[in-house]
Amino acid sequence: MKSTDVLVVGGSAAGLASALASKSHYPGKSVTMVRKEKSVAIPCGIPYIFGTLEETNQDILPDGGLIKSGVEILVDEVTSVDGKAKTANLKEGGVLSYDKLIIATGSRPVIPGWLPGAQLENVYTVPKNLVYLDAMKKKLEGMENIVVIGAGFIGIEMSDELKKTGKNVSLVELQDNVLPLAFDPDIAGEAETILKDRGINVLTGHGVKEIVGTERVEAVRIARGDIVETIKADGVILSMGYEPNVDLARDLADVTFNRDGFIKVDEYMRTDHPDVFAVGDCAEKRDFFTRKRSRAMLASIACAEARVAGMNLYKLSTLKTIGGTIAIFSTALNGTGFGAAGLTETLAREEGFDIIVGKFEGVDRHPGMLSNPHKQIVKLIAGRENGVILGGEVMGGSSAGELINIVGLIIQNKMNVNMLMTAQIGTHPMLTASPAAYPLIKAAEVIAKEFWNN
Amino acid sequence: MKSTDVLVVGGSAAGLASALASKSHYPGKSVTMVRKEKSVAIPCGIPYIFGTLEETNQDILPDGGLIKSGVEILVDEVTSVDGKAKTANLKEGGVLSYDKLIIATGSRPVIPGWLPGAQLENVYTVPKNLVYLDAMKKKLEGMENIVVIGAGFIGIEMSDELKKTGKNVSLVELQDNVLPLAFDPDIAGEAETILKDRGINVLTGHGVKEIVGTERVEAVRIARGDIVETIKADGVILSMGYEPNVDLARDLADVTFNRDGFIKVDEYMRTDHPDVFAVGDCAEKRDFFTRKRSRAMLASIACAEARVAGMNLYKLSTLKTIGGTIAIFSTALNGTGFGAAGLTETLAREEGFDIIVGKFEGVDRHPGMLSNPHKQIVKLIAGRENGVILGGEVMGGSSAGELINIVGLIIQNKMNVNMLMTAQIGTHPMLTASPAAYPLIKAAEVIAKEFWNN
Repeated sequence: MKSTDVLVVGGSAAGLASALASKSHYPGKSVTMVRKEKSVAIPCGIPYIFGTLEETNQDILPDGGLIKSGVEILVDEVTSVDGKAKTANLKEGGVLSYDKLIIATGSRPVIPGWLPGAQLENVYTVPKNLVYLDAMKKKLEGMENIVVIGAGFIGIEMSDELKKTGKNVSLVELQDNVLPLAFDPDIAGEAETILKDRGINVLTGHGVKEIVGTERVEAVRIARGDIVETIKADGVILSMGYEPNVDLARDLADVTFNRDGFIKVDEYMRTDHPDVFAVGDCAEKRDFFTRKRSRAMLASIACAEARVAGMNLYKLSTLKTIGGTIAIFSTALNGTGFGAAGLTETLAREEGFDIIVGKFEGVDRHPGMLSNPHKQIVKLIAGRENGVILGGEVMGGSSAGELINIVGLIIQNKMNVNMLMTAQIGTHPMLTASPAAYPLIKAAEVIAKEFWNN
Repeated sequence: MKSTDVLVVGGSAAGLASALASKSHYPGKSVTMVRKEKSVAIPCGIPYIFGTLEETNQDILPDGGLIKSGVEILVDEVTSVDGKAKTANLKEGGVLSYDKLIIATGSRPVIPGWLPGAQLENVYTVPKNLVYLDAMKKKLEGMENIVVIGAGFIGIEMSDELKKTGKNVSLVELQDNVLPLAFDPDIAGEAETILKDRGINVLTGHGVKEIVGTERVEAVRIARGDIVETIKADGVILSMGYEPNVDLARDLADVTFNRDGFIKVDEYMRTDHPDVFAVGDCAEKRDFFTRKRSRAMLASIACAEARVAGMNLYKLSTLKTIGGTIAIFSTALNGTGFGAAGLTETLAREEGFDIIVGKFEGVDRHPGMLSNPHKQIVKLIAGRENGVILGGEVMGGSSAGELINIVGLIIQNKMNVNMLMTAQIGTHPMLTASPAAYPLIKAAEVIAKEFWNN
């Protein structure tokens, strides 16, 4: 029987980052990563396989860092674990004993049982599986009409990429705007306009009734209220969310699950079993502000959790914890960047926060005539009682990804509107908005005015 | 005699932002801005007048915001003030009484008295004066050989812009690297390489001895140790720093000055006279960490100070103060962005901090094959005792300006390396580095390893 000090199951972002963190913080321990895939897809890059990137294998997580740091990679599958004996059974027949186990088994696409036709040929999901994705890419290349169901990040990015290859793309979303979980309708509307301008047939407010076909998919029946429509489809992509992949964790008697099926973990990413950690899409998350269970699944969250697990494996530190999940999303559509962090206006109101909203629209260069300025919008949501920033949404050029990270740090530091109004920032004509019209400060100013008038 | 509640003297960033903040927070008060210039140059855009922008008047601060908010703009000059009577004498003959005075008179270029030939024709400085800049631009257009003296931000940007117009540009700097105040030699070296690749004759480690010429400049004599060289010059640009413009403030008996000639102010931006505030380049700054007098002059600092002054004019708030100045610099050279915030490694060591340095080099997209990735470097400086981040330097693509603002917020929130290691960030293939190789976290990891081994 082979043995390892730390066994990491799963090779995507959570597995990679926790293996690296384990080895980094406990260099004397042996760390073994078991993963099913010979090559692992970079999760956030998957949609780009279908347009911008020519080959599936241009979106592969490099193994160099793992190998260099001394992590042993085992391409195999853990079929079961014995939590008492602390052993893992491998598909190829071996048994591996471990001291600490990190479950990083990720998530898999939801295929709704209620949807007739979901099992037809040419109905795809978007799993993190390169073999599947490669075959899917080849099949889609021969098709003309594609219907994407669900306008979350994966849905809009898949639509946009497939449109780039010249296909006729319809994007169906039950909610009244695209990206309904991350953005309020005003900012989401900007994304929707870009998608429409690209020629994508965006059908928000439409539910899917049925995928029609005998053997292969032929059409999709959608409905808005009583009005039912049928859209021709050679291929359908279901981007209707993901569910935690916890099959393996079910073996472990002490490991428990929350109502949404995620593995329960504490702030150190420990499960209820003292030597078992869980990180990434399969691990429970609680919202930073509402403390409710969160379904957010992002490689960036997985990496933060993985670092925390790796640091706390053999020695707990109260300073190295995840206090609550802030989903920080970003995406880009035709050169326009979008980002969201924390609560949206809609969600904050639903949750019962009394809020003030500030919004500012400007450009991301100054003077505006310089070097391709891009329209920039920042929206901030603050508590009326104390001015603490609860969330933010941004639209802009290529700096929008880092701009939303600023909002993420504002939230994590529980900064209030006074702190923002006196915050020091740096600006440059070629890189940012002007110092007198820096959008985060200007949006804070709008809030401050109302806040101080309370 | 005309009267105003709030009198702002100066129309550049500090004047503009303090007039707007005054009006915004005290809408019932009348606010008058007196400025000498009919049109005001956007300060950070000035170097771009000499290359990227075709016309000087493409770099003008718009008056729309001031007018819309109800600020009265008076194009005139305050020749003297009477602090007891609270009146200002105007050049055009009028007298204006005020209740609160905000001095935002800015800075002017240093022309070193010890430098022979500094008064010759075709020796220029870079003041914030559009009339001067416009004439200078026209004169420079006819010249072939330009020598820029001083490789701070203005010096390198002027060199880069003039080079774009095809001139033969030499850049002379006494220190061993360009941008010596903001960057350590390793990051500054990256900027130097770009300047050299552009064809600029970069002469670091060279002192200027004399500007040679009879009536007009003909050459510049420089020296490195004992070796003296003469460079042919049709025009010389002195970018050797700025000094606070405090002539007007000298009239006020109660206003005092620090040893460097800046107007002394407190955390509310009040001078020693209870009704006089000073903001921007003319106002004293103290470094956030060292508490020493700082000579940093940036429009972004001016705007932060202006907001604080505007908020505290009639009602002090202990929550709306400037606790210390963090100079957050950024610039761009040929599509590569550079940023610096807080202490450099060099300065931190000189000041006596026991530090740990972490550096990470990656790319600003993931997978790297996607959409023009740019090399990205982040260097962080942390205190060895407590892991608090004291400074950072970045190099990257167009997101470098916002990336350094993240470092600025890390510093302002006194975040330590543990907080960074558990920080949540957002990532996207088209907008940022990968979540497993996000440069700020990776640089923090380098520090953390050493920190925990202490």
